Amino acid sequence: MVVHDSLLWLRRGAWLLPLLVALSGSAQAQAVDPLPSWSNGAAKARIVAFTRAVTEPGGKDFVPPAERIAVFDNDGTLWVEQPVYFQAFFIRDRIKALAPKHPEWKTKEPYASLLKGDMKAVMAGGEKAVMQLAMATHAGMTSDEFSAIVGDWIATARHPKTGRLLTDMTYQPMKEVLAYLRANGFKTFIVSGGGIEFIRPWAERVYGVPPEQVVGSSIKTKYEVRDGKPVLVRLPELNFINDKSGKPVGIQQHIGRRPIAAFGNSDGDFEMLEWTTKASGARLGLIVHHDDAEREFAYDRKSHIGQLDRGLNEAGSRGWTLVSMKADWKTVFTPPP
Amino acid sequence: MVVHDSLLWLRRGAWLLPLLVALSGSAQAQAVDPLPSWSNGAAKARIVAFTRAVTEPGGKDFVPPAERIAVFDNDGTLWVEQPVYFQAFFIRDRIKALAPKHPEWKTKEPYASLLKGDMKAVMAGGEKAVMQLAMATHAGMTSDEFSAIVGDWIATARHPKTGRLLTDMTYQPMKEVLAYLRANGFKTFIVSGGGIEFIRPWAERVYGVPPEQVVGSSIKTKYEVRDGKPVLVRLPELNFINDKSGKPVGIQQHIGRRPIAAFGNSDGDFEMLEWTTKASGARLGLIVHHDDAEREFAYDRKSHIGQLDRGLNEAGSRGWTLVSMKADWKTVFTPPP
Repeated sequence: MVVHDSLLWLRRGAWLLPLLVALSGSAQAQAVDPLPSWSNGAAKARIVAFTRAVTEPGGKDFVPPAERIAVFDNDGTLWVEQPVYFQAFFIRDRIKALAPKHPEWKTKEPYASLLKGDMKAVMAGGEKAVMQLAMATHAGMTSDEFSAIVGDWIATARHPKTGRLLTDMTYQPMKEVLAYLRANGFKTFIVSGGGIEFIRPWAERVYGVPPEQVVGSSIKTKYEVRDGKPVLVRLPELNFINDKSGKPVGIQQHIGRRPIAAFGNSDGDFEMLEWTTKASGARLGLIVHHDDAEREFAYDRKSHIGQLDRGLNEAGSRGWTLVSMKADWKTVFTPPP
Repeated sequence: MVVHDSLLWLRRGAWLLPLLVALSGSAQAQAVDPLPSWSNGAAKARIVAFTRAVTEPGGKDFVPPAERIAVFDNDGTLWVEQPVYFQAFFIRDRIKALAPKHPEWKTKEPYASLLKGDMKAVMAGGEKAVMQLAMATHAGMTSDEFSAIVGDWIATARHPKTGRLLTDMTYQPMKEVLAYLRANGFKTFIVSGGGIEFIRPWAERVYGVPPEQVVGSSIKTKYEVRDGKPVLVRLPELNFINDKSGKPVGIQQHIGRRPIAAFGNSDGDFEMLEWTTKASGARLGLIVHHDDAEREFAYDRKSHIGQLDRGLNEAGSRGWTLVSMKADWKTVFTPPP
């Protein structure tokens, strides 16, 4: 029976192969295209030329594998950041989930407005209100507990406009760049203004980036032994803001090497791009420009998030590649399985 | 001529191979011993058994490669820490090198005592004096400049007792453990109370550990653009002390995963060992015990550095392996090339 099952499997699948090869005359050409979701334009050519230059043994721009460090912003670069950073959805959902244990929130700002769904009133509280909500949802538990909360939440969290899982609102062309660089000996890091422990629980599954290669903003933690069990307790106190001029600081702290390639989409990434590219040797700086209102969102200088004033003004003079989502990307999102 | 040169190379080397194989009857057995500097005792057996258990496909203790994280203390675990932490030699040498630019140091404490070589007087100034000296030598330059200073210094810095290069005062058996674990799919990290940027410039060459896998104490840095050139300026302000209960905090911040193996030598490593081993699944905790006055140094409970009170008291009940340098190590140091 075992033999017969094997034969059945062969019968089912094996005859397909020659047929498929015959049908797709361009099979071989397709197989060697490392960036199939990218249109054949200047942006794709630049990514490929840079990668070939730094990996060509004996070439003038050759970089040893250990020094092939590439850094990627997350919000707006690897996944959508509209209508708000997705971490805000997490905060909203957690406040709602925790509300039954906090009856006082019904009348206390900024919780009361959030629970009523009045985001304008929440935002009127400014940075202080946002920090209160962030600490109420990110602190007060152990690191393991927080990781489990994020993992459970992201498994079902969906986008309000598309109804798709947030992890399916990730950009297929950028995931191809991550994989292409790794196949060429790069270590790929996420360098996000978002919370480091908010990204780690799912970055390996979604992006192939392990926890030790995620750099982000953080709150302080404290080691203690509770009932004989060691834990790291998350404290309601900021540790580090990994944004703007904080990004090169975070990169040095975590990686200890200057990257040779950086990918961003907003002025929050400006200093990371500058730190990466304003140095000797071959360097790649790339900005994802959100100009596709039909398939994604269109915004730049005027957006309430992800402003791109300096980036747009200086990309040319700094040799940074401006990627048009509309023109350069054949596909925006990974098709759902 | 090219052909003749090739033949010459063959004549010089190739005939040696069969001779060497014939001479060493135990060549094959030797080749498969991953830890040749370790005596065949309980400690070596424990390291090998643990490694086999977590790498055996389908075994009950199997750990996927991505989760094979091993952490190593540096001072006293990977290299000597007597008569003082080697970073103190760096501080002393830098104060001497900088003294001509600081004539005021001749009469100002703690600099004056240090320049006179009166370490007792320096130490009388307590933690405040040590911090002053540390900041005077570790801050006030860019991260690239500091890396170059450390690199130049360590290339010639020698031990006062043995006259050997400090980088040759590293433990051969521990370097074999690093290599053995890496060959078995582990990522190896240094988790040191010493300065992260003091270790990074040479850790890859000496230990095979890249900068992004070094965790240590740090001062704050600030990103700025000087004369059009981006730099990270090292500020005279503490950022993080990666020692004792700080080690699990530093591990989580940098690695984001709980290690499954930890190697230390003093109570500064106690919490790191506890965090690593007090969890489900196969875990390895190991303490290097300095009991070899002849080949290295002998100290534990009474030492002014590297105290090992709790570690010695609790190693047994916690299942930690106590390594006797005297009995377990056939060789202590890597022979000079």
